Amino acid sequence: MSLDVSAIRADFPILSREVNGKALVYLDNGASAQKPRQVIDAITKAYEGEYANVHRGLHFLSNLATDNYERVRAIIARFLNAPHEDEVIFTSGSTEAINLISYGWAGPRLQAGDEIVLSVLEHHANIVPWNFLRERQGVVLRWVEPDPDGSLPARKVLDAVGDKTKLIAITHMSNVTGTVVDVAAIAAGTDVPVLVDGSQAAVHMPVDLSSLGVDFYCITGHKLYGPSGSGAVWISRDRQAEMRPFIGGGDMIRTVTRDAVTYADPPLKFEAGTPGIVNQIGLGVALEYMMDLGMENIAAHERALRDRARERLRELNWLNLQGDAPDKGAIFSVTMDGAHPHDMSTILDKRGIAIRAGSHCAMPLMDFFGITASARASFAMYNTEAEVDALIDGLSFCRELFA
Amino acid sequence: MSLDVSAIRADFPILSREVNGKALVYLDNGASAQKPRQVIDAITKAYEGEYANVHRGLHFLSNLATDNYERVRAIIARFLNAPHEDEVIFTSGSTEAINLISYGWAGPRLQAGDEIVLSVLEHHANIVPWNFLRERQGVVLRWVEPDPDGSLPARKVLDAVGDKTKLIAITHMSNVTGTVVDVAAIAAGTDVPVLVDGSQAAVHMPVDLSSLGVDFYCITGHKLYGPSGSGAVWISRDRQAEMRPFIGGGDMIRTVTRDAVTYADPPLKFEAGTPGIVNQIGLGVALEYMMDLGMENIAAHERALRDRARERLRELNWLNLQGDAPDKGAIFSVTMDGAHPHDMSTILDKRGIAIRAGSHCAMPLMDFFGITASARASFAMYNTEAEVDALIDGLSFCRELFA
Repeated sequence: MSLDVSAIRADFPILSREVNGKALVYLDNGASAQKPRQVIDAITKAYEGEYANVHRGLHFLSNLATDNYERVRAIIARFLNAPHEDEVIFTSGSTEAINLISYGWAGPRLQAGDEIVLSVLEHHANIVPWNFLRERQGVVLRWVEPDPDGSLPARKVLDAVGDKTKLIAITHMSNVTGTVVDVAAIAAGTDVPVLVDGSQAAVHMPVDLSSLGVDFYCITGHKLYGPSGSGAVWISRDRQAEMRPFIGGGDMIRTVTRDAVTYADPPLKFEAGTPGIVNQIGLGVALEYMMDLGMENIAAHERALRDRARERLRELNWLNLQGDAPDKGAIFSVTMDGAHPHDMSTILDKRGIAIRAGSHCAMPLMDFFGITASARASFAMYNTEAEVDALIDGLSFCRELFA
Repeated sequence: MSLDVSAIRADFPILSREVNGKALVYLDNGASAQKPRQVIDAITKAYEGEYANVHRGLHFLSNLATDNYERVRAIIARFLNAPHEDEVIFTSGSTEAINLISYGWAGPRLQAGDEIVLSVLEHHANIVPWNFLRERQGVVLRWVEPDPDGSLPARKVLDAVGDKTKLIAITHMSNVTGTVVDVAAIAAGTDVPVLVDGSQAAVHMPVDLSSLGVDFYCITGHKLYGPSGSGAVWISRDRQAEMRPFIGGGDMIRTVTRDAVTYADPPLKFEAGTPGIVNQIGLGVALEYMMDLGMENIAAHERALRDRARERLRELNWLNLQGDAPDKGAIFSVTMDGAHPHDMSTILDKRGIAIRAGSHCAMPLMDFFGITASARASFAMYNTEAEVDALIDGLSFCRELFA
């Protein structure tokens, strides 16, 4: 079933606004996605009539808020086809999720000389937490380079695994090149635990945790058309059992005395303090919105956008494209001689086109491509072929200005 | 100037709803406060027309969102009368804030046998992070008991400070008894760094960081009439300079290569990944709302509520009141013989009155009072004397049922 993109766009209020006097063409979805009215309305509804703190109350509003909040755990489990709902831990996003795993699982287990395999495609969120372990306890980071077209064959990752490897930390989809990594093949090829940064992938393709065979899977709500500060991480029961708590505070304890603290069972053990209640409620609505459309349908629409964008970008022989893997997502990083990506972004912005310029929190990948920054256009389910063409026209205008 | 409470109440949509067929009497503000329309509207406005990721973009919406988000830092600095805006670090709330200080400042500095002084009044958020240091590296927690009426004289805290004391971690206002702690006197009496959990105090009284003399001050947005997942911590420049980063990811780095990472300057150094953009924007509006009313005026109104509640509660000679310090905030913990606090909460809820029953994330304090749970009524700026009376009537009804 193809998406009714017009109907989808009508659900996103911001998409009908103008920027610099032009219709907004929002191609910065890799940084953060816009929100449908259903999500915005759910936030308003929660604050206007259904708000209280969760878990700790017995009064009507607290029970109502707790029900609305806790049901999101099941929605996330369904979205990811997770085997067990209690394997879903709420976080403020992938950054907190990966730090939870670094501090809660890897930190206490890895010794000096132990290795973490990660790819040069990684976002800083999937690098810096491991760098902490390198700085603080002598863990070794073993890097896997992509192929020149940005592809990352599972075999290359598995070849980097050795006796000292204790974790593979890998993206499911690059936020710069759109490269899709076959994390199932990686997980199938080793007994080493596999952490997947699904920040981009979960937005653009179906994720089936019951078949991927990985140990940790992180998602970020604000990229999934959900509110600021929402997100979750799926952690298998086996790995959860090996973890110590990370953030300490209310709700994650069983007993506190002056002499000792005992901890709650997962998932609460890993969720300290008042959570992002309304943010997660909004995320639940966003994921239901996506599931109602169908992730296969969303993926198919974005494949069509990708194919058109790739075809038209290839026609621009003065443009350098970073990463062009065959089955990539609809994310394009480009540079052109004589124009800084910042200038490209500024010029496109005057035409209402929002793209991102910079290192995209992926400096090792920039270095791999021999650049310090690029211009990135990242598509989402609400983008259109006409917006692909607007991007091409805008880039051509840059060329005219700077050639 | 006295508050126009009717006008304030009209700004809070939820306060006009009914619960169980009765007008809502919301006395669970210690757990979380309701939100004014101004905050809800700001969230809607941001998502409907002004949303993008911050810091990393150059396009119109990203610049707009960054401006809207970053200006909240100055609002928080003004709210707390902080000396420098760059001493304000955004967090998801006090829990994350105290963990930031524990992992980023205390953890790397404290050795086995070093001591942290904290009070029996503390919320679990200001206990569990220190317990981690006890469990993991042999730090000693030195507890200071309040007086029988819940007061905590600064002298008792200072008397607990010894040669091995490296930190005092203390609440500014108990979330159970409303006890106000003279943190300025504590800070003036010692060179040991002082961390203040301002989660409750900042809601109910003016906070002047330029005169308190403390080192760390934590606030929680959702208690300050702001959105889920908002908050901040103020950390003096001197203490910031001693800290290592806590959460690792995007935005908090200067450079990332395969071999090493260098970090951004504070405050960004302590703010990893996409932040709670719209949550913080909403918090800014909430704090401006409070400042427009005037914190002195809010405090005066709540003192009047406290005095009336105290007077009327004292008339109930079958009721046990935990904590009755003269200058306490308008937070009351009570128990009655023959009725579990959970039953009291349930009965009050049938009358539309939302209070909290349980240990209030303060088990050591429950233990100090010789109880395992209490019923807590916690007032806010929008509460009225009629609501005090409704509470008294509800408690009296409990008495009739259970006597």
